[in-house]
Amino acid sequence: MGQALDLLKERLGEVSDLGAVSEVLLWDQQTYMPPGGGPSRSAQLAGLELLIHQKSTSDELGSLLDAADQEVAGRHPDSDEARLVRVTRREYSRRRRIPSAWAGEFARVTSLARQVWERARDTNDFALFRPHLERIVTMRREYASFFAPHASPYDPLLDSYEPGLKTAKLIEVYTTLRPALRDLLGEISAHAGAVTDTPIQGDFDERAQWDLGIEVLQRMGFDFKHGRQDLAAHPFTTSFSPSDVRITTRIHRDLLTSAILSSIHEGGHGLYEQGVDPGLARTPLASGASIAMHESQSRLWENLVGRSRPFWRFFIPSLRMHFPQLHALSLEGFYRAINKVTPSCLRVEADEVTYQIHVMLRFELELALLEGSLQVKDLPGAWNERMQQELGITPPNDAQGALQDGHWASGDFGYFPCYTMGDLISVQIFDQALEQEPQIPREIEGGNLVPLLAWLRENVYKHGAKFEAEELVRRITGRSTQVQPYLRYLRTKFGQIYGFLS
Amino acid sequence: MGQALDLLKERLGEVSDLGAVSEVLLWDQQTYMPPGGGPSRSAQLAGLELLIHQKSTSDELGSLLDAADQEVAGRHPDSDEARLVRVTRREYSRRRRIPSAWAGEFARVTSLARQVWERARDTNDFALFRPHLERIVTMRREYASFFAPHASPYDPLLDSYEPGLKTAKLIEVYTTLRPALRDLLGEISAHAGAVTDTPIQGDFDERAQWDLGIEVLQRMGFDFKHGRQDLAAHPFTTSFSPSDVRITTRIHRDLLTSAILSSIHEGGHGLYEQGVDPGLARTPLASGASIAMHESQSRLWENLVGRSRPFWRFFIPSLRMHFPQLHALSLEGFYRAINKVTPSCLRVEADEVTYQIHVMLRFELELALLEGSLQVKDLPGAWNERMQQELGITPPNDAQGALQDGHWASGDFGYFPCYTMGDLISVQIFDQALEQEPQIPREIEGGNLVPLLAWLRENVYKHGAKFEAEELVRRITGRSTQVQPYLRYLRTKFGQIYGFLS
Repeated sequence: MGQALDLLKERLGEVSDLGAVSEVLLWDQQTYMPPGGGPSRSAQLAGLELLIHQKSTSDELGSLLDAADQEVAGRHPDSDEARLVRVTRREYSRRRRIPSAWAGEFARVTSLARQVWERARDTNDFALFRPHLERIVTMRREYASFFAPHASPYDPLLDSYEPGLKTAKLIEVYTTLRPALRDLLGEISAHAGAVTDTPIQGDFDERAQWDLGIEVLQRMGFDFKHGRQDLAAHPFTTSFSPSDVRITTRIHRDLLTSAILSSIHEGGHGLYEQGVDPGLARTPLASGASIAMHESQSRLWENLVGRSRPFWRFFIPSLRMHFPQLHALSLEGFYRAINKVTPSCLRVEADEVTYQIHVMLRFELELALLEGSLQVKDLPGAWNERMQQELGITPPNDAQGALQDGHWASGDFGYFPCYTMGDLISVQIFDQALEQEPQIPREIEGGNLVPLLAWLRENVYKHGAKFEAEELVRRITGRSTQVQPYLRYLRTKFGQIYGFLS
Repeated sequence: MGQALDLLKERLGEVSDLGAVSEVLLWDQQTYMPPGGGPSRSAQLAGLELLIHQKSTSDELGSLLDAADQEVAGRHPDSDEARLVRVTRREYSRRRRIPSAWAGEFARVTSLARQVWERARDTNDFALFRPHLERIVTMRREYASFFAPHASPYDPLLDSYEPGLKTAKLIEVYTTLRPALRDLLGEISAHAGAVTDTPIQGDFDERAQWDLGIEVLQRMGFDFKHGRQDLAAHPFTTSFSPSDVRITTRIHRDLLTSAILSSIHEGGHGLYEQGVDPGLARTPLASGASIAMHESQSRLWENLVGRSRPFWRFFIPSLRMHFPQLHALSLEGFYRAINKVTPSCLRVEADEVTYQIHVMLRFELELALLEGSLQVKDLPGAWNERMQQELGITPPNDAQGALQDGHWASGDFGYFPCYTMGDLISVQIFDQALEQEPQIPREIEGGNLVPLLAWLRENVYKHGAKFEAEELVRRITGRSTQVQPYLRYLRTKFGQIYGFLS
C-alpha cells in the first residue's frame, strides 16, 4: 500500500475509534444511564464531538487525501482503497464547511435536548421541550447556511443522511405516493371488517416477549457473540465496530407485536452492521451505505419477512408455546392481525399502509420549520391538524403527537424521508433476491433464513459504505429507486388481505 | 478567578471528560460488552489514553500551571484553587515522565490482557494469560525506569496509586502485621469449634440476593438517581462524575454473604464518589484522595458496618423475609457465621483476619516479579507455595490461585498494598467517628445510617482529592496511619467471637 494511504488509514482509524466511543456513550445514555448522569454526559459527548470534528477536518487529513488520490489513481475504481479515498473526500469536504465549535455545541445541545425530550414525552409537556427544539431549529438553519447557496435549506440536511438526495426529488416521490396511499387506504376502509387484530391485544408476559424476540433474532442470524439486545424507551441500533453491534427493543404488555417487530426491525439494522466486510473496520466505509439503505434493510426484515405468511408459518408454534392464550390462533388469523390497517397516532406502531403517511407529515413539518413558515410554538397544533387531514384522527395529547419521535431532539432533521426511500428500496431489493433465489420463501417457511441472509450479505451488507445508496440499488437491481414496485407490493398484499383483489 | 486558572480549569475539564469516557468504556467492557467486542474496545481505549496523556502533559498545561501558581499565591493553601494547582502539578510532573506512546500502548495491552485473563480464569489456563502478564511486567519495569533513580522499582508504581507511600514503609507495616495476624489466627484455630458458617451456605435465590443488596444500598444512602448497580464477574466501582457513579456486584447461589458484602463494599466506594463536592467536578480533585483512602471507605462499610452486630440487628428481619429458610436464624448466629475465620483460597471471600495475609502475599509476589527475582512462568508455583506457608492450604487450581484477581491483568502493580493501608485507615477513621458521634451504633441498630454517612461526607468524602491520604488521616484523627488500632480492633472483635477474650 502507498505511504499516504497507510497514514490516511491510521488517521481515519483514530477518528473512527472516537466515533465508536461516542456511540458507546449514546448507547449507555439510552439504556442504563441513571437520570442524574445527563448533564455530565452531555459535556463528555460535546468534548468528543469537538475532537472528532477537529481530527476529521484537519489540514493534515486534506494533504493525506491529496497524496492518497495519487496513490490510488491506478487502482480499480471499485477497490476498497479507491472507494475509501472517494468517500472520505466527500465527508471531508462536507465537514470542512462546519466550524468545529459549532459541531461540539450541537452535540452538547442535542444530548441535553434528548434527555429533556424524554421527560417531556413522559409528562406530555411540550412547553418543557420547546426551547430546546427552538435552539435546534436555529442551529439546523445555521448548518444549512454553511452550504449556501442551495435550492432549499433542507437539501444540505438531507445530504448529510442521504448523499445526493434532493428535496425536489422527495417532493416528486410524495406527489406519487400520497394519492396512491390515500386511494389504497380508502379501499381498505371500505373493507375494514375483513380483518381483526383482537388476537394480538391483551396481556402478554414480558419475559415471554423477550424470549421470543431472542429466538427470532438467533434464527435471523444475529450474532450474539458480536452483539447484544437491551431494552430502550425508543428502540435504536448502534455499532461500535462490525464485531460489537447493539440493538434495542421495548416491550408493551398489552400489544404483542410491538416488541417482536421492533426486535426484527433493529435486528435488520444489526445484521447489516455485522455483515460489513471486517477489512473495512476502522474506516468510514465500515457502516451502512446511507440511512435510506439502512432503513431498507430494517424494513425488509420487519415487513417483507416479519409480517409475512412464510415467516409465521414457521414461528407460530413457538408463538403458541410462549403465549398459551394463543393456542387456538390460526396462522391466517395471526397473519391478518399483524397486518391490520388502522389510522393511528404512533408512527412506530403503524401498519405498512399508513406508515409513509406519518413520514410524509413529518417531512412537511420539518421542511416548514426550516424554511421558517412554521414556528416551533405552533408545531403541536400543526401536527394535529395535519393528522386530522391525512388520517382522520387527532392525537389525544402531544406525547402521542408532536413529541412521539426522538429524531428532532437528536437534531435529526432530514432523517425521516430516509424511511420512505428505505421502504421503496426494500421492496426493490427483495424482489431482486426472490428473482435470483426463488426458493427463499420456502426456506423461510422451514425456518431457514440463511439463504436470504447470505444473499443480503453478498449483495448489500459486505460493501459497507463503499457505494452510495442509489449506486448500490442500481448495481443490485439494474434500476434506480422506483415508487411503483413499492405501490404494487402494497396493493397486492393488502388487496388480498382485505379481499378487494384475489 | 484568575485568567490562567480559568483556562487551566477548562483544559482540565476536557481531560477529565475524556477520563470519564474511558471509564464508560471500561464499565461496559466488564458488564455488557459481547465477547467479540474485545479487540475493537482495546483500540478505542488505547486511542483515548493517548489523547488523555497528550492533553494532560502538554506544554500549554505546564505554562498554565506556572501562571496559575502565581494567581493562587495569595489564596488560603486549603482553598479549592490552591489545592487544584498543587495536585495537578504533582500529576503533571508524574505523567510528563511517561511517553504518550507508552501510555497508549499500555492501555491497549491491559485492555486485551483483561479479556484474556477472564477467559484464562474461566478455563483455568494460566498458560493462556502468561504472555500477556509477561508483557505487562516488562512494561511496568519500563514505567519504573521512567522515574529512576529510586530505592525500589516498586516505589514509582506505589506512588501512582498512593502518592508518598514507600516500599520501605510497607515492609515495616507488614513486619508488624505478619506475626500479629499469625498469632491471632493461631488463637482462633485453637477455638475454631466456637463458630459455624453453616447458616450462610446452601441455596439462596439470586433475585432475593439482588433485592436485599438494593435495599441495603438504599438504606446506606447510595443515590440511585445518580448511580446504579449492575452485575460483573469481578465487582468494581467507577465514576463518570459525582452524579453518575456505577457499582457492580456478583451473586453466588451457594454463598449468601458474597453478593451482599460485595454490594456493601462497592457501595462504600460509591458513596465516597457521590459525596465529593460537586464544585470539584471536572477537575482532578473530583475523586477519592487515593486508592488506600478509597479502600478505607469500602472496607469501613463492608467490615465495620456490614459485618457488625448493630447493622444486622436491623437487617435480620429483612434477611429472614428474603430467605425463608433462615426464619429460625438468630442475630448472634448470623453475626458469628459472617465473621467465621477460615483460611481459604480467595481473597475477595476472605474473612477480616486472613484478608491481609492474602494481600501481603500478593505484595511480595509482585515485588519479586518487578525486581526480577521471580519469573512469570514460576508465578503459579510460587503462589501456591506461599499460600501453603502462610495459610496452610494449596489452591486446587490456578483459577483459585494466581489467576483469581484481575489487578495484574489491568496492569495494577502496586495497588494491593492499598488494601492494607485502607484497612488500617478504616479503623482509625471509624474510631474517630464513634468518638465524635457516640450514638452512631445505636442509630445503625435502628436502621438509620444517615449520621454515619453525614459524618463521613463532612470529614472524608466532600474533600475529594484535595488532600493526600496521610494528610487527610492526620486532619481527621490527629495522627498518621497506625497499625495498632487495627490490630486492637481485630483482637477485640475476634477474641469475643471465639471466646478467648471476654
